[in-house]
This record gives sequence, structure tokens and C-alpha cells, in this order.
Amino acid sequence: MNQAIGVIDSGVGGLTVANELMRQLPNEKLIYLGDTLRCPYGPRSKEEVKKFTWEMVDFLLKKQIKILVVACNTATAFTLSELKQKLNIPVIGVIQPGSRAAIKFTSNNHIGVIGTEGTIRSNAYTEALKSINSRIHVNSLACPMFVPMVEQGIVTGEQAEQVVEESLLSMKQNNHIDTLILGCTHYPLLKDTIQAFIGSHVTIISSSEETARETSTILDVHQLLNKRSHTPEHRFYTTGELDIFTEIAESIFEKTIENLQTATIEKAIIC
Amino acid sequence: MNQAIGVIDSGVGGLTVANELMRQLPNEKLIYLGDTLRCPYGPRSKEEVKKFTWEMVDFLLKKQIKILVVACNTATAFTLSELKQKLNIPVIGVIQPGSRAAIKFTSNNHIGVIGTEGTIRSNAYTEALKSINSRIHVNSLACPMFVPMVEQGIVTGEQAEQVVEESLLSMKQNNHIDTLILGCTHYPLLKDTIQAFIGSHVTIISSSEETARETSTILDVHQLLNKRSHTPEHRFYTTGELDIFTEIAESIFEKTIENLQTATIEKAIIC
Repeated sequence: MNQAIGVIDSGVGGLTVANELMRQLPNEKLIYLGDTLRCPYGPRSKEEVKKFTWEMVDFLLKKQIKILVVACNTATAFTLSELKQKLNIPVIGVIQPGSRAAIKFTSNNHIGVIGTEGTIRSNAYTEALKSINSRIHVNSLACPMFVPMVEQGIVTGEQAEQVVEESLLSMKQNNHIDTLILGCTHYPLLKDTIQAFIGSHVTIISSSEETARETSTILDVHQLLNKRSHTPEHRFYTTGELDIFTEIAESIFEKTIENLQTATIEKAIIC
Repeated sequence: MNQAIGVIDSGVGGLTVANELMRQLPNEKLIYLGDTLRCPYGPRSKEEVKKFTWEMVDFLLKKQIKILVVACNTATAFTLSELKQKLNIPVIGVIQPGSRAAIKFTSNNHIGVIGTEGTIRSNAYTEALKSINSRIHVNSLACPMFVPMVEQGIVTGEQAEQVVEESLLSMKQNNHIDTLILGCTHYPLLKDTIQAFIGSHVTIISSSEETARETSTILDVHQLLNKRSHTPEHRFYTTGELDIFTEIAESIFEKTIENLQTATIEKAIIC
């Protein structure tokens, strides 16, 4: 019960999942590892993503986690089934929660998905959506510019607007979708810019919020919830530059900064 | 995989859960039992609710179900932990899913809950919410008039408006809540009337939609999803009058009537 929730990501994107976990599960301790040094994972091969993901998992397993959240869509697409098979703790990816939420929200069964090249190429969202409901029409699009931009801390302003506009133009011209999945945990940081461009008639699903919600469900099902009210001591690790990571973490955690009074951010060497 | 999802309720309220299950999980077969003859459960003692619930469960277990959805808040409040302990299939109640969704949606941590006398008296929502986040302020209110009214098919119009207004006046005067849980599966049928009275600034959480969503999650975690695209043959049973049950079912299932082409509605004798 007192063990931590382990969270891995290719960089800072998973901090949006961490933020939602701290908000929705304030009694739970997090141990987060972002592989900023080798980010982005999106354009990498399946084998490389698998290798890097296992290195992150091994790092967290030594820290006694009770559940693993793969807060990176690319890593989820390529490694989730293998992790589920091989680990003896529950493992949650970000693709199924976002897909289930989209199916709940859509009225016309036309769902858009945006993600990295790796995620879109893997076809994981289309498979997840269609395995639940074969009548869903999926319109998916890779947005390779988003992650590098967010990792530099650019999420609003003219440059962000221009990149969003150029990336999503073809999707906007498809008038059918009523629901859009942000199929990358970096993208919630661009949510306002994306919503402004795509239009208010489209419900945007953040896989981060939904993954935190399902982590709550799965901890409950496995009777692993920490029901003791206290202020947990979170730990954040990055393989990259501490300064940029800390700056982005602080901007994401703005609203939940009270949870961070006892948090530490450290450098990790995993390879 | 091909086995059915079993759904039990004190009457027709659980049909709102069934409707969402058919919409969100179109490959899954349902077997539904509504104990209309002995509805409402709300004012009954804990022992009586437990006895009636076990009679329903025994009826469904004979029909080879793979998961049990307790689509009645009163039955969930009084029997869920016992059912979870004693059955060797996953069991889902309606209280936790609604609570988790409310925690996801609230911005100010003030959550309202309305339900039957039994549900409110059991304190089950307050406990569920506070066990996840002790800072949540819960404002709960019993609305004993709603279920008998819905079971008569009265969900809109002057009478419905008047009953909703009188029942919710004290909750409306509390200006703090930004999220309201419909803690009874009959209440989604009154959702429009409730939303009009309570105001558009309050997000209404339907435990029915959320329970269907979590059923999808839990079937996935247990690898029990039916991934074959087909038209399942649902079965609905009521212990009460077939005519009224059928009429209400048809009005609830209006939008998903295509799913009902092969459904049967039958009378059940369980005690």
C-alpha cells in the first residue's frame, strides 16, 4: 500500500500524467523517470524503444514500485504487452485509457488521434478503438514537430500556434470527428492551442487525465490504494539536464505545487 | 470471452447502465435482471437488500456470466464488498466509478451526491471519495421521490420539474459544489431536468456512463473482452410487469435500438 506508483516517459511529457496522478490520488507517492537524454522516442525503431524502456523499468523496479505507468505513447505502443507478460505488478499504458474515454465521449463514432510518428505508425490506437467497437472511424495523424517543441518549453505563443496550425490542417479539413485523442503525453501542454485551432465542437481527450483515472481504478481493483491521508514524498529523475527538466516540471505542476514541497528532482544514469 | 456481462438492479434504473454498456461495448452480450416487483430498495433495511441482491446474483450465476455489474447504488452500498469476497468473477459496483470520475472533474473539491435514502444513509459515497482524497468536501442529499417517479415513467414535464425543484432546493442553496454525482442509476433519466435546475456551472456525473467505462477497463485488465465484431443477443429479465418494463426499456434504449433487434425481455421468478 505504501509503495510508490512508478511512472516512466521518454522525457517531460509524462509529467502531465504525474500531475494528474498527484491531483486525483493525493495519498500516493510517485517515482518518475524521464529519459530526456534520449528523447524523442517517436522516430526510433521498435527495438530501440523496447531496449530503452526496459532500462527505465529496471531502474524503477529497484525502487519497489507497486504499479508501473508507461506514460509514453510510443513506449506503450511497442512494449506494453511484453511488460504486462513479464512483470508481476500491474502495468498501465496510455493508449487504452484514452481510447475508452473517446468511445465514451463520441456521439458520431468519428474519432481523431494525433501522436508521434512511432505511435501512429504502430496503429495502436486504431487497433485499441476498433477492438472495442469496429464501427469507429479513426482518423490518425503524426505530428513530429510537437514533442521537440514542448521539450524546449514552447507551448503557447505565435510559434506554437503556427506549428499546431500547419500540423493539424489536414485533420481540420476533415469535418467529421467530434472527439480528438491527444495520443502523446506531451500534447496536453499544447491543449489550449490545439482546441483553439480545431474548434470547440471537438472534445479533446487527454490520455494523461484518463490514465490517472484508470490507475486509480486498477489500484482499487488490486486493493493497492494508499488510504492513509498524508503528504507523500515524490521523487523525479531525469537522464538529461536538471535545469530544463525542473523548469518544465514547475510550470506543469503550477496548480499542484503544494504536493511538491517534499519532492526531489535528481539526475539518473541508466545506461 | 463469449460469456455475458451480468447486470442486476432493483428495477429499471440499471437499464441506463445497460444502455451505456451496449453503446461503449457493442460486442458484449448482456443478461440483465431488474427486481421491479420489490423496487425500490432505497428505504429497505441492509439485511433485506442483501437477501434480495443474493437472490438476483444466484439467478444470473446460473446463466454463466463473466463479470457482475451491480447497477444499483443501494445494493452496491450494502453488498459490494461481500460479493467481491465470495464470487470468483470480477464484480463492479456503481459507487467507485462515479466517485473517481467526480474527483477527475472537480476543480474546487466540493462534490455533491444525490441518491436514495439507503445509499445516502450508508455514507458509501462520502467514504469512497474521502478514502481517495481526504480534502474533498461532500454534500450529500437523499431524494426519495425520484425512483418511484421514474419507475412510473415520469421523467420530464411539470411534475418532474416540481419534484426535482423541491428535492434539490437545499443543495442548490449551497453554492460551492462544482460537480454533482447522480448516485442512483434511475437519476440519469432525470438528468436534463436536474441540470436545468442546478445550473450549467455544475458538472453532472452519471454513475451509469462511468460504470460502463470501468467495466470496459476491468474486462480488459482480466483479458475478458469479446473482440469479435458481431450483434450480441441480449436478455432482459424483470420480476415485475413486462409491459411497463418494456416501455421504459424502449424509451431508454431509443438511440441504441439497433442493438436490441435480437434482444428478448422475459419475466423472472427469483423468490
